[in-house]
Order: sequence, then structure tokens, then C-alpha cells
Amino acid sequence: MTNAPDTQEELKLLDRYWRAANYLSVGQIYLMNNPLLREPLQPEHIKPRLLGHWGTTPGLNFIYAHLNRLIRHRDLDMIYICGPGHGGPGMVANTWLEGSYSEIYPQVSEDATGMQRLFKQFSFPGGIPSHAAPETPGSINEGGELGYSLSHAFGAVFDYPNLIAACVIGDGEAETGPLSSSWHGIKFLNAARDGAVLPILHLNGYKIANPTLLGRSSDEDLHQLFSGYGYEPLFVCGDEPEKMHRQMAETLDKACDKIREYQQRGRSGEAQESIPRWPMIILRSPKGWTGPKTVDGKKVEDFWRAHQVPVSSCRENDQHRQILEQWMRSYQPDDLFDEQGKLKPELRALAPQGEKRMGASPYANGGRLRRELDTPDIREFAVDVTTPGEKQVQSTEVLGQYLRAIFQRNKDNFRLFGPDETASNRLSDVFDVTNRTWMEEVKPYDEQLARDGRVMEILSEHQCQGWLEGYLLTGRHGLFNCYEAFIHIIDSMFNQHAKWLKVTRKLPWREPVSSLNYLLSSHVWRQDHNGYSHQDPGFMDHVANKKADIVRIYLPPDANTLLWVGDHCLKTWDRINVIVAGKQPEPQWLTMDQAIAHCEAGLGIWPWAGTEQPGDEPDVVMACAGDVPTMETLAAVDLLKTYLPELKVRVVNVVDLMALQTKDQHPHGMEDDQFDQIFTRDKPVIFAFHGYPSLVHRLAYQRNNHHNFHVRGFMEEGTTTTPFDMTVMNELDRYHLAQEAILRIPSLAGKADTILDELAEKIAGHHRHVREYGEDLPEVRNWKWPSQQGSSDAPE
Amino acid sequence: MTNAPDTQEELKLLDRYWRAANYLSVGQIYLMNNPLLREPLQPEHIKPRLLGHWGTTPGLNFIYAHLNRLIRHRDLDMIYICGPGHGGPGMVANTWLEGSYSEIYPQVSEDATGMQRLFKQFSFPGGIPSHAAPETPGSINEGGELGYSLSHAFGAVFDYPNLIAACVIGDGEAETGPLSSSWHGIKFLNAARDGAVLPILHLNGYKIANPTLLGRSSDEDLHQLFSGYGYEPLFVCGDEPEKMHRQMAETLDKACDKIREYQQRGRSGEAQESIPRWPMIILRSPKGWTGPKTVDGKKVEDFWRAHQVPVSSCRENDQHRQILEQWMRSYQPDDLFDEQGKLKPELRALAPQGEKRMGASPYANGGRLRRELDTPDIREFAVDVTTPGEKQVQSTEVLGQYLRAIFQRNKDNFRLFGPDETASNRLSDVFDVTNRTWMEEVKPYDEQLARDGRVMEILSEHQCQGWLEGYLLTGRHGLFNCYEAFIHIIDSMFNQHAKWLKVTRKLPWREPVSSLNYLLSSHVWRQDHNGYSHQDPGFMDHVANKKADIVRIYLPPDANTLLWVGDHCLKTWDRINVIVAGKQPEPQWLTMDQAIAHCEAGLGIWPWAGTEQPGDEPDVVMACAGDVPTMETLAAVDLLKTYLPELKVRVVNVVDLMALQTKDQHPHGMEDDQFDQIFTRDKPVIFAFHGYPSLVHRLAYQRNNHHNFHVRGFMEEGTTTTPFDMTVMNELDRYHLAQEAILRIPSLAGKADTILDELAEKIAGHHRHVREYGEDLPEVRNWKWPSQQGSSDAPE
Repeated sequence: MTNAPDTQEELKLLDRYWRAANYLSVGQIYLMNNPLLREPLQPEHIKPRLLGHWGTTPGLNFIYAHLNRLIRHRDLDMIYICGPGHGGPGMVANTWLEGSYSEIYPQVSEDATGMQRLFKQFSFPGGIPSHAAPETPGSINEGGELGYSLSHAFGAVFDYPNLIAACVIGDGEAETGPLSSSWHGIKFLNAARDGAVLPILHLNGYKIANPTLLGRSSDEDLHQLFSGYGYEPLFVCGDEPEKMHRQMAETLDKACDKIREYQQRGRSGEAQESIPRWPMIILRSPKGWTGPKTVDGKKVEDFWRAHQVPVSSCRENDQHRQILEQWMRSYQPDDLFDEQGKLKPELRALAPQGEKRMGASPYANGGRLRRELDTPDIREFAVDVTTPGEKQVQSTEVLGQYLRAIFQRNKDNFRLFGPDETASNRLSDVFDVTNRTWMEEVKPYDEQLARDGRVMEILSEHQCQGWLEGYLLTGRHGLFNCYEAFIHIIDSMFNQHAKWLKVTRKLPWREPVSSLNYLLSSHVWRQDHNGYSHQDPGFMDHVANKKADIVRIYLPPDANTLLWVGDHCLKTWDRINVIVAGKQPEPQWLTMDQAIAHCEAGLGIWPWAGTEQPGDEPDVVMACAGDVPTMETLAAVDLLKTYLPELKVRVVNVVDLMALQTKDQHPHGMEDDQFDQIFTRDKPVIFAFHGYPSLVHRLAYQRNNHHNFHVRGFMEEGTTTTPFDMTVMNELDRYHLAQEAILRIPSLAGKADTILDELAEKIAGHHRHVREYGEDLPEVRNWKWPSQQGSSDAPE
Repeated sequence: MTNAPDTQEELKLLDRYWRAANYLSVGQIYLMNNPLLREPLQPEHIKPRLLGHWGTTPGLNFIYAHLNRLIRHRDLDMIYICGPGHGGPGMVANTWLEGSYSEIYPQVSEDATGMQRLFKQFSFPGGIPSHAAPETPGSINEGGELGYSLSHAFGAVFDYPNLIAACVIGDGEAETGPLSSSWHGIKFLNAARDGAVLPILHLNGYKIANPTLLGRSSDEDLHQLFSGYGYEPLFVCGDEPEKMHRQMAETLDKACDKIREYQQRGRSGEAQESIPRWPMIILRSPKGWTGPKTVDGKKVEDFWRAHQVPVSSCRENDQHRQILEQWMRSYQPDDLFDEQGKLKPELRALAPQGEKRMGASPYANGGRLRRELDTPDIREFAVDVTTPGEKQVQSTEVLGQYLRAIFQRNKDNFRLFGPDETASNRLSDVFDVTNRTWMEEVKPYDEQLARDGRVMEILSEHQCQGWLEGYLLTGRHGLFNCYEAFIHIIDSMFNQHAKWLKVTRKLPWREPVSSLNYLLSSHVWRQDHNGYSHQDPGFMDHVANKKADIVRIYLPPDANTLLWVGDHCLKTWDRINVIVAGKQPEPQWLTMDQAIAHCEAGLGIWPWAGTEQPGDEPDVVMACAGDVPTMETLAAVDLLKTYLPELKVRVVNVVDLMALQTKDQHPHGMEDDQFDQIFTRDKPVIFAFHGYPSLVHRLAYQRNNHHNFHVRGFMEEGTTTTPFDMTVMNELDRYHLAQEAILRIPSLAGKADTILDELAEKIAGHHRHVREYGEDLPEVRNWKWPSQQGSSDAPE
């Protein structure tokens, strides 16, 4: 591991390497044949559709080549997070040059044939996407939707002390909200146990059709801005390759020295007083650098016109084709590739070896590094349920005990993420064994803050999501706990991760990574204190749009079911699991054995809660999904038992929402005959649902008895009020459910008007009471299942 | 308008005013009776549920009182944007003190009775929410979901040169992504024509259960950070009221002087070289300032324990009740309120008068200032369609011509927002008459940038949305154009705005504001070049969850329908309109007259496209919604005509998606009998849909023929490929649609196997061709409706 001074010679070689990458990048955008330009460029060599982003690519290539040098000189473990992932040709070109591409895709070999395939496949039907993507070796970041590269980089290096994530951030991306807050990541980075992030803000000055804000900022403002975030900004600015190579090499050496210095100090055991001033690089270079200066008299290089395809219609337009040919030949392909089309050996020697190549790093194919999570037996944490509904427990608090054990057993392989809501969501038991990560000053009276804490809290759902994605994609495990309503903040990040997983599942070389797990608590029905802005269960709808292979949604009704679900989700891979569970004291229904059986089935009859006898066909099915709907359903059954003791009521609870779908729609779908046995083929089903009712209709759409499903859920009515009043506002409460059941049972038609009136009077009485006293009626507050002694069996 | 030096006397009065606001804030959180503490505090005076956020409130009150002073001294038009909107008691207290609250809500009068009501209603069932909300006078920002206050502030002051938006940003909110990027707003603020934003970063150091990142940053880092963003940071730090009043008054005077100086300079006509260093204030004050220092031996004031209710269980716990009573009496209510409970006159004199009061500002009830948009006749821009399908036009480009006219007619009342995609979305005609707003340096070769530009482009969907919301809520008009996939970035902001509108509709004093309009282009079917990350039509699903009153979704199939829809949406109020339309050349179907009739109906039969004769019952209904699905449907009909000339095919197009719902579900729902006449009661309906198929099922769920709807749409399959290949991947192409039609028509059972085979061969042929040549088969590329001469009538 030497830090040899760069010879002029080395930088000359490096410039040739850069030219090779640029040549290959242009080739991918334009050519489908004649890859080495061994014959004059003809229209038929050119693709019919010219797609790709040139503008950012030469800068990406420049950085990649210099990072290769750094890795070689210092034997680094480094990955390349490509914020401008639309510069896909650059990533592909570089991994091909270093050989990692052909190892994964042997047909794209390191010769002229392979180069032709490399060019043709790019942005071509049946080929590869135009952006860096799951298909791209070395990538864990797409860069299609901008904003998340730096969060991914921090997530990647947590708990990997040897890893450096070089993260290129385009000046377009730097304008986004998520990226703007992600600079704070260093305030959660522990030099002793974590790796380092080296942000490279690549200012080429332009977006699609506009200058960029930071591109037009003065060096002084930029220096202040990033100093204010806590960094030491290092500038590399210019457009003359020779000078720029020299500057970049020196600056990267300096940055790397700083990183090593801070890490050594952090690992020395001395107390650290403040957060190191981690280096970050500001690279100003022209957009479309080395490309055509002008086309048709219009400025292209160093302007936004270089963003995508700088010279178009090269099949049809001879002059444009000439520009293209001159441009490509300016890289001197014969100086770069040998007779067979392979990169010349003196250039190939510039790439690192084996797994040090950024395209072959196991860190960027995290499944290769993934160790199974060491999980305890959930029975250790089981709530002792002897009579259903008797005990009130905070379900998430019980999950917190389980998570405490997870932390104890997995010292460097699991983190919990959340926007300052871990305690609010009642997971505080984890603080018995770990703390919140906090690198800024700790005051004497602070609680549960520590430099080696493993609970990651920042008031940015974007950072929580981005960090967790980075952590998972590099082979670790985690859980994101969040208020249900505000998880919509990362809807779009969820989309991108789901898309990423969908594609990786078809790539045999991408090893499975742990699932992305959400615990949504402080949910719509128990944000009665924060009000309407905090009440939104729509994330489930959003999730259900994605490929069935990828997504799961669980609504455990109590603590034991939540334990099973949480444990199950943490053991899965390549999925996104959404768990919605309450944090308030709520009745507990199932013993651990019952919970396990119920969760494994996904949904099922609760025989102890219904009034049918074995072999009966029920008059009505009272179905429920979610903790509050379950309680209201049981309270409604309680009312029905009082008013109509002869009625045969069946209670069905749904834990795994995807079980509502058919087997051919979703792997968790229940078989049709089993479903029919549970929900009947023709009886009314009153379904109390945690979310928007349409989701149940959508999932159960293909079921035989679907037309008989009457679903109640969130009707977008909310405010600051009592928890029970929230259910009344949305007609999901026991009274409305009982009314609906009576109205839907054909045999009761016209025979239960008095009961309906009594239920209506109960609703009116509730309204009067709650508005006068600010709390619910005692019969609601004190209600317990079963209200009638002896009317219910003990659980089986 | 004097800038009188503050006397000691004035600041003493101001301190009493502050104490009054603090007293009222605590009262709202705790009391339901005995508001003036004229008798000893008893358990029954205290609310059964103690809800609210104390921690931020004294700071909010401090700022409010000082802004009142500033307004009075300088006769300012100022509004108060309350980022920490959860400090609702503060906003309510202050508007009650200044009298604006009681003017809107006379029952909450300015006396002891009114004060009791003020206290009781807060966070009480049937009362008001715990956060600043639409119900709160003077508010345009909820603050429930953090991150958007500063964007709202900038949106509010654009084109209102006299307005200053004082924007309080909590240090929690300051950690979010959207807020972090919103500091860039000054780079879009023109001192000559716009008002000013005065950001007040209120660092009280803590979130729910954590310190904050900026709260623990050094003054030096903060100074650098905000200087780097382009501001002049001014600090006000401490906890001794007397000193703090002095500091705050001086600092606000200084900030206001700066603002006036920059505005005068900007309005003087001299050329401005750089963006003014607008002032921003960093206020460090203790969380829960003036509240209990400790409770049960634990630190409360100046710590996160002050966040919500600092001392709990005051009904049950005598000691806690004592703390509360001492705390409230420490404000000396008798020194503040007269015998009747009214604020003493010398204090009331500290509030501004009339509409200068921040709770009575018309700027914060923007409908009062709203002028109708001056719109041109859409016929001026109509595409001349003589034969359906003959002409290829870029529909959004035509809308751009219309928008150009909007800009010409509305010089200070309309803006177009977008994340650097206005040109990409083909709206460039607007640049004939305006430019992009750009306050940083303009280089000689830059295009369409100007200080007085009215197209707002920043690569942050969050800022586009936040600015537009602020602009609309203060009474203006606008349109947000965005790539379809990335509009999910603001899912959660959409939620909050929809919730805001839902509530304001029930408040008679809130005048209607213009609708929030989205134009989603570069949509899922024509992001074939950017690939899978850019392909997502799910925003429609998200929108459809909201209250029917509020939301509309339009899928115009061509330019003339887009013109009608765009024009219609811009004329509406209190809604959110989503328009999805393509930017690529596409066939034009309807004359302007036809387009108007079709759009007004929402959906309808296209008789010229089908093969049924008047009075016929069709064999199949080919329905479509969206431009690409419409084209594929017509191409499928074309195939059916070739293969099965006897078949009676009906073509139905849906422009207004909500017309699929029933009349009782949505105001735009079509009457059932009319719907049945169009979709039949029993014929198969093959529905080609722009988005996820489930949305059509969900909307048409209650329709008679719904079980016969066979919907094809986006199946979450995508990549970089040809546009037609995208439809094939998702089985939405003409061949699959024709196959489905044949399979669903009972009379064809078993009789059309050869045709089905031929269609399957066409799909296989497509796959072979596209993978070889990278473009679609000539028969697809060159297809035009109708392919068979003379087989179609001219449009009526």
C-alpha cells in the first residue's frame, strides 16, 4: 500500500483510460455496428433510435478512472454510487474496461464482438436500460429518480469500517429536497465503526434545459454552504484535461489522507470532541466535456444541449454523422484497443484487481455479504392470553422487547430507523441495550444518545428510507418505524426500491438482500390527538400496485400476531413488508399458538368470537383487518349477541392482506375453496378495514362472494377527537357495523327496526356525550369482550 | 410610518402581551373551566384528555408579539407562516388577543365566556384541531406534516410586492429534505416585483425525544450554512425575557431595514448584479420557555420533555395540578385581562389594526384577493381535424400555445411550475412571451432566463408543489407540469393540500381559491427512452382516495380534448385536477366541436370509430382512457374489422375518469341509465387504460355491467425499449386487445382460432423484429387510422 507520487506518465495513461471510457460511452449511445470504426461510419452502423445521456458521462468517467487509481495505490474497498445514474453509458463502459462486466455477462466479451454487443444492447429492445440500473455491475443506486444517492452512500458504509462509498452527486440532483438534507449524514457517521463517504459534487452547470443553482453559485458560497454542513470542501475546477488530471489526483489523495486520519483517530480509543470535518470534493467540469463544441452553430459542450444526445439524426444527416465520426475518432480508438478490440494491457493495468474493481465489489452486490439475522424465539415475548380481550397491552411495546433481543444478538448487522418516533411508537425497550446514534455534542442530561447507538433518528423520512436502502443493499438488516400517514413522504422511494427488487430477482448474479420492512404505527385510528393531517392509511394502496412477488401487507390485530409478523418479515428477503400496528393499549385476542396458526394461514375464522355452532352456515360474516377494526367488530358482535341472540355470526380476521387475493394473483393468495368455506359463497360479509375500503374490494375482486362484501374503513373523515369518535366519524364503529349487519341479513328485513333505532340512538348519545365531556361514554371506555359473562368460549 | 426607538416601556408592554399569549396557550391545553383562575384550580376544571404541543408555543408567541410591533411601527402587510403548526395554541391565542378570532367565530367572544370556550374547544371533540389548521385565522400552512413552510412562504409573496411572509421554521422541520432545499427560494425572488420572505429559524434544540441537528450546531456552522445559501443570518439567542425582547426588536428592525433597502434598490430601475443577501433570523430560545422547569424531578423546560403536555394527569395528581396552577398564575392573568376577561386596552393597543392583523390579513385568505383568470377561446388553438387519425400532433405543444395566451393575458396572476421539464414536456411556446425566473448570473448564451420570467423551474418537485400551493392559497392561479412517474415525490404534499381544501370548503369565511392543477406528461407509455424508473402511473390511484368533492382526473386522448380540459381546470376552484397527456406526436381524433361535447359528457361513444349501425347492440365494447390506449384500441378495432368484418364493435372513450363512478359517488359520475346505454348491461367491455387496471374496476365497481369489464393497463412491466414494445410488454397493444375481444365474445367461441393464431404470430413477429432492428415493424410505425380506405365515416 503505497502512496507513490504520480508520475507524468501515470497521468498520461490515466487520460488514455478516460478516453477509452468516453469512446465506449459514445459508442453505446450511437452505434450498432462498426464498433472500432475500422471502416468509415455508415448510416447503417448507427442505431435507429438514439437514446442516452452524454452530458454527465465524461465527468463520471473522469471520476471513475481517478478512483481506480486511488484504489490501486491504497488497496481500498470502494464502491461508486452514481447519483447521475442516467449517465448509464459511463458505468457500463467502465465496468467493461475493468473486466467485471464480461465476467457477469460473458457474451459481452472483451473483444470487438463483445464491444459491438456492448454498444448495440444499450437502450435497445431486449438489451439494457439507458440508466445505471440493477443490471449494471457495481451499482446499488439507479439515479433515474434523483435525490437519494448520498443517503444510499451513508447507508452503505454504516458498520462497514473498511468501505469508502464514493458518491457522485450531480448539480441537478443537488437541488432536490432529499439530497439537500442528506448532507447531514456525517452527523451519524462514527469514524470508529463505520466506513466513510466521499461526496463528489459534480457541477457541470446544467440540467435538462437550465443552468443549476449550485453550478452558478460562487466558489465562496459553496465553500460556506458545505462548511456549514460540517465538511471540508475541496475544489477541482477546469476543462483542460492535463491540469484537471493533476488536480484531481492530488485532491483525491488529500481527501483520502484526511479520511484515514479521522478514522485512525476515531479508532485509537481517544475520546473525540467533535465530528471530523470530512472532506467533500466539488468538481467543476464542462457538461459534455470532450464532446462536440457546437452543432448546427449552436453551443453544445459546456451547455445544457449536451444533456442527452448532443448530435441527432446521424443516420439521415451526413454532416451530423461526420461530427459523430470525428468526435469518436478524437479519442483515438486504435491507441486504446488492440487488434482484437481488447483494452491495451498498459491501460488495463490501471484498473484494480479482482473484487477491488468497483464493478466486482461484493459490497455492491450485498446479498453476497449477507449474514442471516440471529432471531430469538418469539415465544419468549408472548403475551399470556387466557381469555380473549381481557388483557390490554401496547402491541408495539411487545415488539420492542423482541427488537431489544434482536439488537443483543446482532451487534453489527441490524439497525432501526425512524424520524424521531421510536419512543413515540413504543419501541423504547430497545434503548435498554442500545442508543440513538448521535455524533454531535451530548449534554449531561441527554438520554439514550451515544456515538455507538444503533437507532437512527433524523426528522427526515427520506433519510431513514435512503439509509435503510443503502444498508440493506449492502447486505444487512433493518426496520423503518414511522407514523402511518407520513410514510407517504417516501412513496416514490418505495416505488424505486420495488422496481429495483423486481429487476434484481431476474438477475441470477444478484444475490438476495434482506427485505425492506416498515412498521407503521401511530396509525390513522390512533392519531386522534394530532388530527386530520396525521390520518392517512393510503400507503397500503400504493404498495398494492407493485408486483405481487415483491410486496406484503400485514395487519396484526394484537401483540402475539405482531410478534409473529415482525419475526417473519425480518427473516425474508427481496421483499417489501408493510406492518401496520397500534401503539396504544388494546385488547389481546390470541394465545401464541393461536397467533402462529392464524398468521400462517393469513386469515381465518375466530370460532370463539362468533355465535355459530360447528357445521352451521352463518347468517352473516363479520370480517376485520387491523387492530381497531377488530376491536370494533368484536364489540359489534357483542351487540348483536345482546339484541339477536339467535343470530349465527361468524367472525373472520385477516392478518395477511394478500391472502384476500387469489392464488394466481399473489403467492400468499388463499385457495378459492378454502376462501369460500371461510367467507361463504352467498352470505353477507361486513368487513371492517383499517384503510380505504376500496383496497379490500380490489384484492377480493375475483372471489365468489365478492359482491356480498360490504366494506367499511377510512372515509377521509378526521380531526382531533377521541379514538372512538374517529371510528364513528368514519362509520366503522360497533354501532354502525351492527346496523350494517342487520340491514344486510335478508331474513331480518323489516324485523329489526327497533334494534336499528336503538343503535341509532346509541350513536346520537355518543355524539352528545363526547361533545359535552370530551371523552367517550363509559360503556365504550370500559367495554371489554365479552361483555356478557359466559357467552363466549375460552380460546382453543 | 415611523421607526421609533423602542422605549423600555414598550418592551415591558410587549412582555405582558407575550405573557397573555402564553397564558391562553396553556389554558387551551389544560382547562375546560375557570379560565381566569378566579377560583382555585379544581380537578373538574381540567380536561379529561390533555392534548397539545407546548414546547414550541412560547417561541411562536414571542415571535408573533414582536412581528405585531414591527407591523405597527412600519405599517407592513405581513403574514405569519407557522412551520411548527403543531404549536396551534399559540396561533389561536394570538388571533384571539388581536380580535381577529372573535370576528370570525363570534361565539368565542373577547370576554371570560369566550375565553372559556376558547380553552374548551381546543383539541376537544366537536371543537378545533390541536394544530394550526384551515380553521385558524391567518394560516395558510398546517404544520402537521413538516417540511413545507418556507416553500409556502415564497409561493405567497411571488407577485405581491408589498407582502412580507414571516416564516417560522422549527429546528425539527429544518431537518427534512423539502425544507432543506427550500432555502434556495431567494434565488427565484425578484425584489422588484415580489414581496419578501423573512425566515425565522427557531432553534429550541429538541424534537419529540431527541436533540435537533441544527440546534446542536455551532453558531459558526450555522452562520456558514445560511451564508452559503445566500442569506445574511442574524442571531437572537438567550432565555432572559428582558434581554431577548431587546435583541429581537433590534434584530427585526435591522432585518426589515435590509428588506426595504433591497426592495428599493430592486425597484429603482438600476440593474442588479447579484441576489441580495436577504436577512434571516436564527432565534435560539428554550423549548417550553417559561413553563415548568422540572416535573417529578425531571428536566422539562429547555428539553424535549416540554414538547407536548409538560405536566400530565393534572386531574388525578394534586401535585401536578399545583404545578399547573403555579405555572399559569406566573403569567399574572389579572395583570393582563380585565374584569370581563378582555385583554387590557394598553395591551390590545400593541396589536395592529384591521386587515393589518396577521389573523385578518386577506393574503392569508387568498380567495378574497382572487381575480378570475382571463382565458382565451380555446377554438383559437384548435387542431383542424378533418379525418380522424390522419394528423399527428404533439398535444402538449398545442396546450403550450394556449398557455402562452394565458401568460399574455395575465401578467401578474399566473405562473407555471415544473422541475426543469417545461421544454421537455413541449410547453416551450410559453417562452415566446415569458422566461424562466432566474436571479443568479445570466450568461450571454443562456436562453429563456430572466429576472422577470414567470416559469418557475427548480429540480425539486417539492418546491414546485410548495410554491404553487403558497401562490394559490394567496389568491392566484397556476399549473404544475411534471413527469408522471415523479409526481409521486409529492404524494404526501398532495394529501395535505387535499385535506386542507376539504376542511376549508366547510368554512364559510374561507373564500374559494383556484384549483391545484397538474399536467402529467412524459407519461408511463412514452418514457420508453428513460426506462423503468420513469414508468409509473400510480398517482391517479393515490388521488382517487381523496374526497370526491375535491379531485378530478382527466385523460384527454388528443390535443383538442386536452385544450378543453386544460381550460376547464384553470377555471375551477377548491379542487385538485390531474391531467395526464402525452407530449409525443400522436394521432388526432376529434374536431373541436366533438372534443367539447365529448369532454362535457366525460365519456362517450365514438360512432365513427366503431362498426355498429345505429340501433345495433354491439358484440363488444372497446373502451379506452388515455392517449396511447386510445390509439391501441383504434388499431385493435382496425384489426377486428379486417379479420371479422361482420363484428359489431362499439368504441367508447373516457376523458373524465370520475364519470365512471356513479352519481352518488362523485359529482361527475354519469347517470346509471346513460352509462348502461353506453357500456351495455351485458356485453363484454375490453377496457384499455392508461394506468393500473384496478383503478377502473374500483371506479366502475357499482355499475351494472362491471363484471364484464376486462381491463388492461400498466402491469408494472417496463424498460428502455420502443414505445410500441412497452404496450406489448403490458399486453395493452392492439394485438392483445384484439385477442381479448375475440376471446370474450361468446358467439366467437371456438370459431376464431385461426385469427387468434395470426394475432399471436404478429406478437411474435414484433418481438423478433424489435430485438433485431431496434425499432418497431413498419406496419406499426406507419399505421394510420383507418388503414382500410373508405371503411370509416368522416367525423360527424
